[in-house]
Amino acid sequence: MSIWKKFQRFLFPSKQERLFTKDIASIIGRLPKNLNLYKLATLHSSVGKLSKKGFRVSNERLEFLGDAILNMVIAEFLFKKFPYENEGFLTEIRSRIVRRATLNKLALKIGITELVELQDKNHKKRKNSIYGNALEALIGAVYLDRGYTFCKGFILKRIVQDHLDLQKIIHTDSNYKSKIIEWAQKENKEILFESFDEVDGNNANLFEVSLIIDQERISTGKGTSKKRAEQNAALEACQKLELL
Amino acid sequence: MSIWKKFQRFLFPSKQERLFTKDIASIIGRLPKNLNLYKLATLHSSVGKLSKKGFRVSNERLEFLGDAILNMVIAEFLFKKFPYENEGFLTEIRSRIVRRATLNKLALKIGITELVELQDKNHKKRKNSIYGNALEALIGAVYLDRGYTFCKGFILKRIVQDHLDLQKIIHTDSNYKSKIIEWAQKENKEILFESFDEVDGNNANLFEVSLIIDQERISTGKGTSKKRAEQNAALEACQKLELL
Repeated sequence: MSIWKKFQRFLFPSKQERLFTKDIASIIGRLPKNLNLYKLATLHSSVGKLSKKGFRVSNERLEFLGDAILNMVIAEFLFKKFPYENEGFLTEIRSRIVRRATLNKLALKIGITELVELQDKNHKKRKNSIYGNALEALIGAVYLDRGYTFCKGFILKRIVQDHLDLQKIIHTDSNYKSKIIEWAQKENKEILFESFDEVDGNNANLFEVSLIIDQERISTGKGTSKKRAEQNAALEACQKLELL
Repeated sequence: MSIWKKFQRFLFPSKQERLFTKDIASIIGRLPKNLNLYKLATLHSSVGKLSKKGFRVSNERLEFLGDAILNMVIAEFLFKKFPYENEGFLTEIRSRIVRRATLNKLALKIGITELVELQDKNHKKRKNSIYGNALEALIGAVYLDRGYTFCKGFILKRIVQDHLDLQKIIHTDSNYKSKIIEWAQKENKEILFESFDEVDGNNANLFEVSLIIDQERISTGKGTSKKRAEQNAALEACQKLELL
């Protein structure tokens, strides 16, 4: 695009652009400085075009960045909120917050889903991770556009405070094992948890469990107890089978 | 400790405290504001005492925080340094940087190892993850003591720029598979990579491989190709067997 065209577009944005700006502003609570970042954040790889340098332009790089930022902000939030809990608790609660199922719901709540550009709106994976990923990409865009302090505030205010029921997340005993067993009974599948010898990891003794459905191993989980490892294996299976 | 005692100690710090302050200042490049954070960061759980509230005081919570900060700073660094690489590349290079083996070496280089308080200096796990963990805890302490911008500068200047050979990290094809096979031949062990059906993860097809040594499964790895999954399984095995 020529500089003249860019300047023209800056002075007279299209209606679509004005609407998009308004949508983003209502989500992040301030006018975006660099709208292109937010356009990129809502660009799913199914519509991403190849750039001149042979690089497919989509929100995946921003998602990588946003994921790291979200993890850090939530880590600090939990660290300060729970001064007498150990790192095992903090790790567990954070993983419940940043897991795809939670992020997908949050993406719906803050309204990013409407903005995501997809090849095919009836995409098979629609209910899957696309929107959670877009939320992470949005966080990446907010960080690059507005800096660390604003982005942290955005996460804590617009995501954690407005939409996250922390007490529920902590007290829901996410029993994925019973969920998968229930599913298997309904679907008439044979299900088996196979546990392995205690393995000595870096920090503590680690258990490993495989989940086998109809003779096919579909997931493995690790944990500091056999129960924990089973839950992790079951969680992964639930995610793969889209039971969450 | 009474307020009077605290005040006294503030005015006349012990020799040990003055030395510790000097050591920390030489590592982070500025005088620490809150020395207690750094004391905590160098306190391994083997010497951590139970607090009044039944909470074992050690550097593990700070490690949780520092790990998240390090991940984020490295993510942004790579995101900006490699504008034409996809998120798979960024994820892979970051994981090579933040893995225990690299962090342990970095901890040695920046001199935190001398400061770590351990129960037993000949601790079996000494060569293991203790120092990498202490480095992460130090990062957490720097963040809480001096804020985000300083901490980011500390990581980028004192760790990445001074001690990390990024080109080597990128171009070293970390062939853990050949490393573990070599070890097995030397130790006369039977070794087998067992691969499982392609499993459909959230984003892409995922492969899973188990590494079996003398009929015992010692690790599993996942990856977007069978080769990658094998490497990850071999890497985990190398870590468990302390071959790195």
